[in-house]
Amino acid sequence: MPILVMKFGGTSVATLDRIRRAAKRVGREVAKGYDVIVIVSAMAGRTNELVGWVDEISPLYDAREYDAVVSSGENVTAGLMALTLQEMGIPARSWQGWQVPLKTDSAHGAARIEEIPTDNIMAKFEEGMKVAVVAGFQGVSPEGRITTLGRGGSDTTAVAFAAAFGAERCDIYTDVDGIYTTDPRIASKARKLERIAFEEMLELASLGAKVLQTRSVELAMRYKVKLRVLSSFEDNDENAGTLVCDEEDIVESKVVSGVAYSRDEAKMTLISVADRPGIAAAIFTPLAEAGVNVDMIVQNISEEGRTDMTFSCPVDQVKRAERALQAAREAGEINYHDLVADTEAAKVSVVGIGMRSHAGVAAQMFRALAAEGINIKVITTSEIKISVLIERKYMELAVQALHDAFELEKAA
Amino acid sequence: MPILVMKFGGTSVATLDRIRRAAKRVGREVAKGYDVIVIVSAMAGRTNELVGWVDEISPLYDAREYDAVVSSGENVTAGLMALTLQEMGIPARSWQGWQVPLKTDSAHGAARIEEIPTDNIMAKFEEGMKVAVVAGFQGVSPEGRITTLGRGGSDTTAVAFAAAFGAERCDIYTDVDGIYTTDPRIASKARKLERIAFEEMLELASLGAKVLQTRSVELAMRYKVKLRVLSSFEDNDENAGTLVCDEEDIVESKVVSGVAYSRDEAKMTLISVADRPGIAAAIFTPLAEAGVNVDMIVQNISEEGRTDMTFSCPVDQVKRAERALQAAREAGEINYHDLVADTEAAKVSVVGIGMRSHAGVAAQMFRALAAEGINIKVITTSEIKISVLIERKYMELAVQALHDAFELEKAA
Repeated sequence: MPILVMKFGGTSVATLDRIRRAAKRVGREVAKGYDVIVIVSAMAGRTNELVGWVDEISPLYDAREYDAVVSSGENVTAGLMALTLQEMGIPARSWQGWQVPLKTDSAHGAARIEEIPTDNIMAKFEEGMKVAVVAGFQGVSPEGRITTLGRGGSDTTAVAFAAAFGAERCDIYTDVDGIYTTDPRIASKARKLERIAFEEMLELASLGAKVLQTRSVELAMRYKVKLRVLSSFEDNDENAGTLVCDEEDIVESKVVSGVAYSRDEAKMTLISVADRPGIAAAIFTPLAEAGVNVDMIVQNISEEGRTDMTFSCPVDQVKRAERALQAAREAGEINYHDLVADTEAAKVSVVGIGMRSHAGVAAQMFRALAAEGINIKVITTSEIKISVLIERKYMELAVQALHDAFELEKAA
Repeated sequence: MPILVMKFGGTSVATLDRIRRAAKRVGREVAKGYDVIVIVSAMAGRTNELVGWVDEISPLYDAREYDAVVSSGENVTAGLMALTLQEMGIPARSWQGWQVPLKTDSAHGAARIEEIPTDNIMAKFEEGMKVAVVAGFQGVSPEGRITTLGRGGSDTTAVAFAAAFGAERCDIYTDVDGIYTTDPRIASKARKLERIAFEEMLELASLGAKVLQTRSVELAMRYKVKLRVLSSFEDNDENAGTLVCDEEDIVESKVVSGVAYSRDEAKMTLISVADRPGIAAAIFTPLAEAGVNVDMIVQNISEEGRTDMTFSCPVDQVKRAERALQAAREAGEINYHDLVADTEAAKVSVVGIGMRSHAGVAAQMFRALAAEGINIKVITTSEIKISVLIERKYMELAVQALHDAFELEKAA
């Protein structure tokens, strides 16, 4: 039998009614002849409640106990889903992470999957079971303790199962009906993409399109798992949702596939830094140690042995960044005249694998922004992405202008 | 180090504050030099919520999935308790049933404990861990699936751990401060017992004093585990609560230790049954198969080959009993003129190991009831217990009269 992996997120299993609805979708795939592996998240709100309790007890918690507590939500959903399927007459059973066993390393709270043995579940499929319901987000460490894979980890569980079992496809059911050219709440002309390349999805995911956990996309790319994102709240046909797939499977594509954004960014500038070999390391090591997620970095041309160094980070990490840099200055590790924080920034990016073979995308982007009178504070580029930092109040305008400029409302 | 087992029920861990309070009690025992094994229930209300979901999805549920779902509540409490202890500076970690592993048979929903290996936890105690927090109520079957031990199963988990680890004592923290001579809500003179024998506790537990799961008392008796019942809502000294112990450890005891009751009983009488060998089996086999919990049985003297057969059962099983008996009559298995159900009965019992060596207890009991004008419908006796079925409206009066008659308000 061909195998299909179906993953249902927290909002898709938030109530018993929604679990029933999800189970009906599973039933339809079973009727088509698939053996199905269902990966479930905790019912919406459960994990937050559990995390809240742990945080309240112990701000610096033991991550092993954190994992033991927060993994329980998925176990509940897995059992309830198996019961619902049985009630529909479909042979099903649940597996918790340690029962598979889904083996991970010992990095509690953000564990990495090491191995998924297939023999237990395959034996049950051979005995006539049609659906294996697996609790997502969790595994077991070499020490026999429960681990979790980090927020959104059920996506990664799903892709890893699809890879291990050679599944025909991995369907991710969520509360949106696919991947869009940009956020429809900002640009009403946003269009759902039928297909998107893994690389593009990676750039979009890390830029704030929170549909899929980044690691799940990396894993899908590595093992060539066909990944489909679709809504659990709509009727879907064969072509519903968005297929995240290998570049080769995308016949025609536009130069730019989507416009991403990240609202709460800050720009920090160290003014008149003594320019010497190793200065970048001296600045960014203390920031990394303080847990500041530095994103864009720009270094001005050096004049008379001094330079300005600019970087961006999330707004809520500005205080932490300031403390780390001042401490480094007091320790004599770095030397600067002033530290200026601009907390009114936002990042807007255009993403597309077509950029690799097309020149002039950056120029077109800058023209579109200039036409709206939007000033660019910082620019960074990668092979398939151009990002700019702008004033936050222009963010929506910039997204709309870029969506129009690259005609993303039209299919390729 | 001597080992102590402490068990906290659902109301004792219902909130984070209560978990903290329970953890402080654990801390005090650690300070005295004990290595402590803490057994926790689910936070009050959790298990009911989970059971409700399972019932709603599937009235005839797969007990393996039921167990997978309902066991999750204890896992949450175990992790939270371990974190709370760590926050207090006490080295602690949590164990789920499968991690110990607490091995049971495969009777899902009412599994029996088969083995508790001590090596894992002992190794941690030797490494300096002071508290092992174990999720109660659950184990793992030979097939590697999660089992549960039935309602109140955390008591049994606690006693089994105390037996396996040779604990000095097993303290059961609950929402009452001990075992009373009778229910204080009915007889205001009810007195807390300092000690009670296992056999007496077993009779009281099965008669409706719902403080301890019956199986936990059986297990404690078999392995001579000193079991203490005490309140998690009061300050306790060394002699707090009630010690459930071997008969030999009770120096002085009264003839009668307590008065128990069971409110919702029914008396059923089969009138004019053809009396022949095997007739009792013919009547009670279909009742057992229908799941009717028959309690007292009385057979009248036979006249002219016919007799009356009377038995008691819970009121809510009367319909089921009637159907089973009528079906047996229609199948020609039994023969009777009429079936009369009296659904207004209650059972009152006096219990005491002293009865073994004292005559006249029954007579004293009957006199006390007669003095209040209470008619006795059915009588049964065991070595350490006398039970009577009476009209329900006299139940409270009977309990008070018997408490007075045997002077239970006075210590031995």
